Amino acid sequence: MAPPFPQAISVAELCGYLGGEADDAVRIDGAGHTVLRGVAPLASAGPEDLAFLGDFRYRQELAGTRAGAILLGEPDARAARSAGARSTLLITAFPQRAFARALRALYPEVYPDAGLARAAAPTVHPSAQLAESARVGPYCVISQGANIGPGTVLYGLCYVGPGVVIGADCRIHPFVTLHHGARLGDRVIVHPASVISSDGFGLTAGSSGPEKMPQVGGVLIGDDVEIGAGVTIDRGALEDTRIGSGCKLDNQVHIGHNVALGQKCVLVAQVGISGSTTLGEGVTMGGQSGAAGHLHIGSGATIAARGGVINHLDGNGLYGGFPALPVREWRRITAATHRLSDALVELRRLRQRVAALEERLGESASEPPEV
Amino acid sequence: MAPPFPQAISVAELCGYLGGEADDAVRIDGAGHTVLRGVAPLASAGPEDLAFLGDFRYRQELAGTRAGAILLGEPDARAARSAGARSTLLITAFPQRAFARALRALYPEVYPDAGLARAAAPTVHPSAQLAESARVGPYCVISQGANIGPGTVLYGLCYVGPGVVIGADCRIHPFVTLHHGARLGDRVIVHPASVISSDGFGLTAGSSGPEKMPQVGGVLIGDDVEIGAGVTIDRGALEDTRIGSGCKLDNQVHIGHNVALGQKCVLVAQVGISGSTTLGEGVTMGGQSGAAGHLHIGSGATIAARGGVINHLDGNGLYGGFPALPVREWRRITAATHRLSDALVELRRLRQRVAALEERLGESASEPPEV
Amino acid sequence: MAPPFPQAISVAELCGYLGGEADDAVRIDGAGHTVLRGVAPLASAGPEDLAFLGDFRYRQELAGTRAGAILLGEPDARAARSAGARSTLLITAFPQRAFARALRALYPEVYPDAGLARAAAPTVHPSAQLAESARVGPYCVISQGANIGPGTVLYGLCYVGPGVVIGADCRIHPFVTLHHGARLGDRVIVHPASVISSDGFGLTAGSSGPEKMPQVGGVLIGDDVEIGAGVTIDRGALEDTRIGSGCKLDNQVHIGHNVALGQKCVLVAQVGISGSTTLGEGVTMGGQSGAAGHLHIGSGATIAARGGVINHLDGNGLYGGFPALPVREWRRITAATHRLSDALVELRRLRQRVAALEERLGESASEPPEV
Repeated sequence: MAPPFPQAISVAELCGYLGGEADDAVRIDGAGHTVLRGVAPLASAGPEDLAFLGDFRYRQELAGTRAGAILLGEPDARAARSAGARSTLLITAFPQRAFARALRALYPEVYPDAGLARAAAPTVHPSAQLAESARVGPYCVISQGANIGPGTVLYGLCYVGPGVVIGADCRIHPFVTLHHGARLGDRVIVHPASVISSDGFGLTAGSSGPEKMPQVGGVLIGDDVEIGAGVTIDRGALEDTRIGSGCKLDNQVHIGHNVALGQKCVLVAQVGISGSTTLGEGVTMGGQSGAAGHLHIGSGATIAARGGVINHLDGNGLYGGFPALPVREWRRITAATHRLSDALVELRRLRQRVAALEERLGESASEPPEV
Repeated sequence: MAPPFPQAISVAELCGYLGGEADDAVRIDGAGHTVLRGVAPLASAGPEDLAFLGDFRYRQELAGTRAGAILLGEPDARAARSAGARSTLLITAFPQRAFARALRALYPEVYPDAGLARAAAPTVHPSAQLAESARVGPYCVISQGANIGPGTVLYGLCYVGPGVVIGADCRIHPFVTLHHGARLGDRVIVHPASVISSDGFGLTAGSSGPEKMPQVGGVLIGDDVEIGAGVTIDRGALEDTRIGSGCKLDNQVHIGHNVALGQKCVLVAQVGISGSTTLGEGVTMGGQSGAAGHLHIGSGATIAARGGVINHLDGNGLYGGFPALPVREWRRITAATHRLSDALVELRRLRQRVAALEERLGESASEPPEV
Repeated sequence: MAPPFPQAISVAELCGYLGGEADDAVRIDGAGHTVLRGVAPLASAGPEDLAFLGDFRYRQELAGTRAGAILLGEPDARAARSAGARSTLLITAFPQRAFARALRALYPEVYPDAGLARAAAPTVHPSAQLAESARVGPYCVISQGANIGPGTVLYGLCYVGPGVVIGADCRIHPFVTLHHGARLGDRVIVHPASVISSDGFGLTAGSSGPEKMPQVGGVLIGDDVEIGAGVTIDRGALEDTRIGSGCKLDNQVHIGHNVALGQKCVLVAQVGISGSTTLGEGVTMGGQSGAAGHLHIGSGATIAARGGVINHLDGNGLYGGFPALPVREWRRITAATHRLSDALVELRRLRQRVAALEERLGESASEPPEV
């Protein structure tokens, strides 16, 4: 059961909402007046639920479903009727994309209540600028010179440091720190407890041990970036750390100072990228992978989960392992190590056989010590 | 030295507090009126300290201890007297369990001060329901439709989102986010800066790159669950992410959307579990281990620290390495790789010896190039 | 471009600020009245920027720079003039160290605005003690018996638990939890969303599964410690977890209960150290490395990134891999595994050649099955 608060909407209304661009047209096969109040998997959906068939392997569930409506592609629609499904069908060429929109329609965002914010007015420095349509929840701190764009929502308990700029239509969740002149583009989402633009790990050799090198750069984040929960992105040492437009960062990712991510990179949970490393566009890094500092990973490269990058990597390749290698090579090595202990036994036997041959031929068997 | 604030209690009072169920009976050998004001290790304990002997390897410290009282098992009690220990003894069949209770007796919880909360009243939406005995510390935000059970404590600076349900006798520490309809059972502890039920990492292929797939599921947490600091648990995509009763999660654990943990799983620090993976009951995952998505790990399985699971795993097994294998196999491979560079030298020598034999016998030595 | 708010300062003033101790003397070659308003890399610096030459590899950029002033060492100063650089030079024997000071001079700290703090006064328990020169930002909670030293700054939205002691001149960033009697020395920096002294992961076997073992120790942090964002340091079980003076912890580091770090250890991002492990002085652990519990790592040891320590390690060594080995050995093994699949092919060929020899000599070729 999905949490609050779906709203009731008819299939016809939903269809109007979904059909944006020409490519994305959605047509109805069945009763347009069916009222939907939520979304559920085919198997458990009821007559007021929208179900979604995104993978043909679930076609077998079409026959028995009680879903009020099903969103699916053309071939699946035919399969649904053949299977005897009686639900209203919403048919489109791009069902995934339409489903994303349907979820937005049925589960509208719940904003911080305006009444709450009045009761616990955020603390806003007089020099800060808030667009009229921005909503700032309770117990937020908005520091001197900060600038918050129209349509942006801060859910409450957020810290916006001096000189921070937030674009339009952003969503800043609780316990987010936007520090030291961070600048966010439009439609940026930052999930709870993430820290943008805190000091990087800069040390210099002091007279009696490591000393802090002050960090004075910032963080520059493009448009349409989503940043998970518990992420840390360090400010640059002198210049900016950069996160390109369209990048998606999962939870607990760490980005060191002066890193630059090209557009549309995807970093899965618990990835770490050390200082000054740069990624091209569309790089994907799997969960718990990492990259050492001062490297470049080319556009379109993919690092498998847990891969550890310690050299520059060409674009468009698929890499894995530690040190990260082309994935085919890495798999070959892994497979070979799985055969290794048998090979060591074989090696020993072979050594005995060679020694036997040598003895038979009267060779001076100057045997090296056994492995 | 332990931080605030132990309370003074006599051995007799403590004994009364410890002896709950029949199995757990505790008897006193020595002066019941000894007053205790804290807990310390055998070696450094003074006459007002309770010491604990939980491991026979520390028996040697019994002779010299100045502890006011010692909590221990029957055989250790005899050893203590033989060694000439003069402390009062608290003797029980289950000393670990009794010690846990003794710590609770001597170090009562320090709640957020009621005066503080009045000075900085939390912000509570009129539609939220708080049990009368719940305590909500300063600067908490309690959103519309939230429900907080009796005896539950929020330490302050917590965010409770719309529709969130918290059971009885829970402890929610500062900077915890309970988001999007998270539902917690009874006696759940959430340590600081953890994020429950923020959006999972759901992407779909948009017309020009990865696009966000809205997440509308929640998180369902059973009873007696403990969640460390800096943990992130993603809400389900459509249905709920589930954490079974009695699960214990250490700091900085990440749980992806639609993951389901059976009862009493133990996840050590910095573990990451990708979306839709399910664990049976009583699974243990060591520190910095991880599991890929859409897998099942059977009940009672144990993953060694840093293990990386990329296949389904049977229950009750012990696994390690990356890719995770039965631990015996993984150790065999690791040991073999340690012998590998010697083996390569041996292989080369053997090749030379075979070549010598072949030459001697006039074989056509069609040597392949050297490795 | 660096974020706010550099201040204007003449080269002569800056020089006065830099020259502290005799060793660190800085002299001017050029116009002392040049006004600086920021710092920038040689290549992009303008006439009001200070540039820094810290690495001779950048000497080629001296010729074309438009920087108002350059901070550099004696040999580089000669090179600068030979290259025709017209900037004012600031010349010193220790340019790195001087540059750290220059950054502090040009980018003074921006404190939480006093006006803001008045508008949203922090919540301070009457029994807490704040030095008159301490600054506490909005929405901080300062609990009973806490003590905050002179010159210390809490940026706002911080939680200071009962009995916590913070020394002089510390910087505590937003969303930091200082819990359960944590004690911090002087000049300690804690970056956002870090958690100091929350409960460690202590479990005992209960009658029906793992049960919480109460944690009653604290955390003791020395002077000049810097703690990154999203770090978790667990309180000790009975006694204190200890972080020695001068330690530097990067983001998302996890420190288990009863760990003790000697002075001046450096832990890079996402390191995890399990309970009761101790580090000597000056230990360095690379990013994403980890150590199992109850181990000792000797002073001056270095663990390479992603190393996994599962045995005691001697001081001053360089270790890597999992299980962590002396780095030379680890590299030898890694290199050998890269040659492994070729070696397996070679082994097979050799086996055929030996079999051929045996056959020729009429040996009883009792072949074992192929690997």
